[in-house]
Amino acid sequence: MLPFSKPDVEQFFRTFTIEDFAVSPDEKQLIFSTNLNGKFNLWAMDLPHTFPYPLTFVDQCCHTIHYDQQGRFVLVGFDRDGDENHQLYAMPPRGGQLQPIRVSEGDRHFFCSLSKDGERLYYSSTKGNRTFLNSYRYNLLNDEEETLLEGEEAPTILIKVSPEETSFVYVKYFANTHQLVYVRKDSEDIRMTPPTNDQHTVSGMIYASEDEIYFLTNCGEDFTYLANFDLRTRKFAKILALENEDFSSMEYDKDRGLLYLVSSKGVEDCLYQYDLSDKKLQKLDTPVHVIEKIVLCEAGNLYLLGQSATRPKNIYLRTTDQKEWKELTYNRVPGVAEEQLVEPELVTYTSFDGLKIEALYMRAKKEASNGYLILWPHGGPQAAERKTFRALFQYLANRGYSIFAPNFRGSAGYGHKFMKMVEGDWGYGPRLDIIHGLEWLIENGYANRDRLLVMGGSYGGYMALLLVGRHPEYFKACVDMFGPSNLFTSIETAPDFWKPMMKQWIGDPEKDKEKLIEDSPITYTDQMASPMLVIQGANDPRVVRQESDQIVAALQSRGVDVEYMLLEDEGHGFSKKENEMKVYRKVVEFFDHRRALSPE
Amino acid sequence: MLPFSKPDVEQFFRTFTIEDFAVSPDEKQLIFSTNLNGKFNLWAMDLPHTFPYPLTFVDQCCHTIHYDQQGRFVLVGFDRDGDENHQLYAMPPRGGQLQPIRVSEGDRHFFCSLSKDGERLYYSSTKGNRTFLNSYRYNLLNDEEETLLEGEEAPTILIKVSPEETSFVYVKYFANTHQLVYVRKDSEDIRMTPPTNDQHTVSGMIYASEDEIYFLTNCGEDFTYLANFDLRTRKFAKILALENEDFSSMEYDKDRGLLYLVSSKGVEDCLYQYDLSDKKLQKLDTPVHVIEKIVLCEAGNLYLLGQSATRPKNIYLRTTDQKEWKELTYNRVPGVAEEQLVEPELVTYTSFDGLKIEALYMRAKKEASNGYLILWPHGGPQAAERKTFRALFQYLANRGYSIFAPNFRGSAGYGHKFMKMVEGDWGYGPRLDIIHGLEWLIENGYANRDRLLVMGGSYGGYMALLLVGRHPEYFKACVDMFGPSNLFTSIETAPDFWKPMMKQWIGDPEKDKEKLIEDSPITYTDQMASPMLVIQGANDPRVVRQESDQIVAALQSRGVDVEYMLLEDEGHGFSKKENEMKVYRKVVEFFDHRRALSPE
Repeated sequence: MLPFSKPDVEQFFRTFTIEDFAVSPDEKQLIFSTNLNGKFNLWAMDLPHTFPYPLTFVDQCCHTIHYDQQGRFVLVGFDRDGDENHQLYAMPPRGGQLQPIRVSEGDRHFFCSLSKDGERLYYSSTKGNRTFLNSYRYNLLNDEEETLLEGEEAPTILIKVSPEETSFVYVKYFANTHQLVYVRKDSEDIRMTPPTNDQHTVSGMIYASEDEIYFLTNCGEDFTYLANFDLRTRKFAKILALENEDFSSMEYDKDRGLLYLVSSKGVEDCLYQYDLSDKKLQKLDTPVHVIEKIVLCEAGNLYLLGQSATRPKNIYLRTTDQKEWKELTYNRVPGVAEEQLVEPELVTYTSFDGLKIEALYMRAKKEASNGYLILWPHGGPQAAERKTFRALFQYLANRGYSIFAPNFRGSAGYGHKFMKMVEGDWGYGPRLDIIHGLEWLIENGYANRDRLLVMGGSYGGYMALLLVGRHPEYFKACVDMFGPSNLFTSIETAPDFWKPMMKQWIGDPEKDKEKLIEDSPITYTDQMASPMLVIQGANDPRVVRQESDQIVAALQSRGVDVEYMLLEDEGHGFSKKENEMKVYRKVVEFFDHRRALSPE
Repeated sequence: MLPFSKPDVEQFFRTFTIEDFAVSPDEKQLIFSTNLNGKFNLWAMDLPHTFPYPLTFVDQCCHTIHYDQQGRFVLVGFDRDGDENHQLYAMPPRGGQLQPIRVSEGDRHFFCSLSKDGERLYYSSTKGNRTFLNSYRYNLLNDEEETLLEGEEAPTILIKVSPEETSFVYVKYFANTHQLVYVRKDSEDIRMTPPTNDQHTVSGMIYASEDEIYFLTNCGEDFTYLANFDLRTRKFAKILALENEDFSSMEYDKDRGLLYLVSSKGVEDCLYQYDLSDKKLQKLDTPVHVIEKIVLCEAGNLYLLGQSATRPKNIYLRTTDQKEWKELTYNRVPGVAEEQLVEPELVTYTSFDGLKIEALYMRAKKEASNGYLILWPHGGPQAAERKTFRALFQYLANRGYSIFAPNFRGSAGYGHKFMKMVEGDWGYGPRLDIIHGLEWLIENGYANRDRLLVMGGSYGGYMALLLVGRHPEYFKACVDMFGPSNLFTSIETAPDFWKPMMKQWIGDPEKDKEKLIEDSPITYTDQMASPMLVIQGANDPRVVRQESDQIVAALQSRGVDVEYMLLEDEGHGFSKKENEMKVYRKVVEFFDHRRALSPE
């Protein structure tokens, strides 16, 4: 009887997200960081009751949520409008005033841990050592602080302290694909991975006892496996590996001798339970395709934050008795059923040099399709486009745009070698992987050569710019969100503690000068002709606004149709719902308008 | 270890409220109107899951929520920024676009009911008859509308349609204390209460069958009782009365032959279950002191929206099996435990003419008290100050102010005679009740004569103005929120459909000229000397901004310390959290500052 109108722009962006969560030691309270009221704040629920109540009103993203084991306070970390300078505060568990604990203007703090008695805080910080960082033990009782570790040669971050605080583990981050892990005990620094010159990564540190450490590494292998290090014998041991799967995080159930392992397999995640006594591995069902975080409580109950392409981030609980996932939150696209959303299709193709590439393809529903395809090169670049919920994708698909998101060489989740292929080669291999993907789509009837658009953020913005500079014949319009336009200035303006890895990651401005010129979008402004929309956060510490200013100025001077949207209160991404909606509404208008103007 | 600071201003105002709710026929969804994200919108929960999700993004208060029994849509009513011109829309039950159903600019619609098949909408409206209103049957299928009733002599509102739509009940609202109820069947209008010239009220209409109607009235009595009208025999019968309690609303459980009755007893409400077969009355425990709404579902489960002085509005559920109240929502003062809030004390005193007056007294906690007392004359005036949660009161008490809120003559909940005492006497009896209350407080050590402040809204604002005009010696400062300052202009500018009741309620500008002059605050501006803060919503349709403009201009011309705060996007009250916080923060600043200036 009542014909309701189609879902509105707003509905897709009115979805909420959950960035992090923590569960109180007694499992009576769950705190989560969400933009439920439009801006990010901490909210809580008193389990098993799930109606949320607010704890903070700072309207900022929270990056650390850690309960004092005695229940007296929660340690929380906030930055300001996306500047990523996380400061540490104590908050009453029921909310209220934030009490500054470690606050230092212009610096960022990396929380590591809090002692069992809640008195000693372990953390790393850029204060006093902006490039390599120092690590500290801060006493909350008497306000005294001790420097535990002075970073050298690479940014050095404390990642775990032993339960009795007799040793701690730290990692030297040479690059996204090159990390070395050490444990310090009795003033001695002991390397935990076997001696090798091969680069590898480390993550997921767990002290099973004072002397036994479980962690994840790909040392000597292409995919990340579970390893063990015994502090008494100083023996490293490979425990468990899965073919073509990277273990990415884990939780330890001491009472039951179980490890819960999350593995990443291309565009999806899996969850496993590993019994340390009988070495049995069991794959567990999960309610989502992508797992953001798992938290295991003492009683053995497992909490999971995750998402799928058609369902935004939610928190789920699997109790030891029920073994079924119960959804604690309920984030959906308002007024749009999951069946009305587009589920991405996994496609694979072969690139110019025979490399196999996976990609996600979202087909606009037949009745809505306008025949246009938006190419989305993901950011990172050492990340991947996965089966996550993207309001923008769902909205674009609903409005008739199909989307193609290839995991070009350099993407994470396809092994260490694959990931390293983008290092020192930002603009050649990945670019041709994408062009080959487009050709494959056209050949196989997934796309129309005359109806291609491109849009990306961060590295994806860089790639969008480079593509319209070097392959202008493909694209009818381009949207660049905070993408580096000039690799020289990008290297120069990167956060101090990123600098040591720049040489390996992007290149050396002197030695690799020609390659960097060749791979910089700014080199090709003369060839850029597609209408362009450039979006930038003024506080972005990763890709500074000069990167966008440059390209906009260059294009404007040539009379190219370019629009510039500078957001005063944002950093690298959108932390405020209103900004996000403003930007994405603009993007759709831009594409709709430029599409209408373009000759068929 | 960590001394957290005291609760902040913001925390008290960061409480949410719930204005209305509805439960889907299958009890799988509960929709509620709340300012959870700062502004009013509709939210829902999928029972038994209680995590809420948003349905609308209009940022406006919703005044009608009614499910189509077939589950295809929900009928909802919204006004704009407090203008009270409610328009009717259909909304998909999962949220999304609002579809206009009955929208007429500048008019207000009163929803009555929707036919069982969801096709015929019954409502009253000011359109075409701004003073007395007309009532309509609108067909949602073919967009045809029929006028059922043309209002005459008094604003006439449709309040119930029989299940098979063979008859309907309407009420003529002569005054808050004077209403006549009729049922129309086969073009005949039948009065439901016995013939009497005594004024009385009617409410809570229930069709137990096509011919049997239960309702609430105080016809012939001082307190409201349960009555029955039989359409076949045309017999009126008094069914159930309680001493000194006014029944205020009810729900009918047909399958079990039960009536659930809410009664109002001064500052609190009670809930009863009445068995129609064995006439047994049972008082039920409630989780709150004040009940805003009850909803009974077919399965016999009872939903309740209510509040107490230390707990904001929440929704509770009492299932037929468990008989215990389970809280579905969780609105609290963030970071402030209920024990830290002030529970009002009920005090009674005798007024100038021997009349017994009840009042609520909130004593600032000893450690916080600044010795000042804020007198709060409530609005209405035919309403009452009850045990409801007021963020403002709790915040003021936390900051050291005690509060005195007398239910002066004219207040609701103390019988029909008591309530009528304010009619035609806005400024004498009620005012002296208040002054006698202050004297009683001073005598009994509850207040200090040199530390009195006054604040009120609507009639309470009027009374605050009148008090500082006629008893300037009492008050060190005054806050008036949208209070009428001139009874002549108030009568003139009242909404059209209020006009017929003005003569009885306030007075006749010609016949009662002297009394109205005597009772108008504007008459006493020469005596007003206390510093004053005047707050007004620009869209207020009840007390128009001219009421505040007048008094401010008069005081400014005399050089009195007066501040004026005009809110562009508000009506009679505050619909937006940010405005509410801005206003109340200002109020506290104003009192703190004026208190500091005043000689002891």
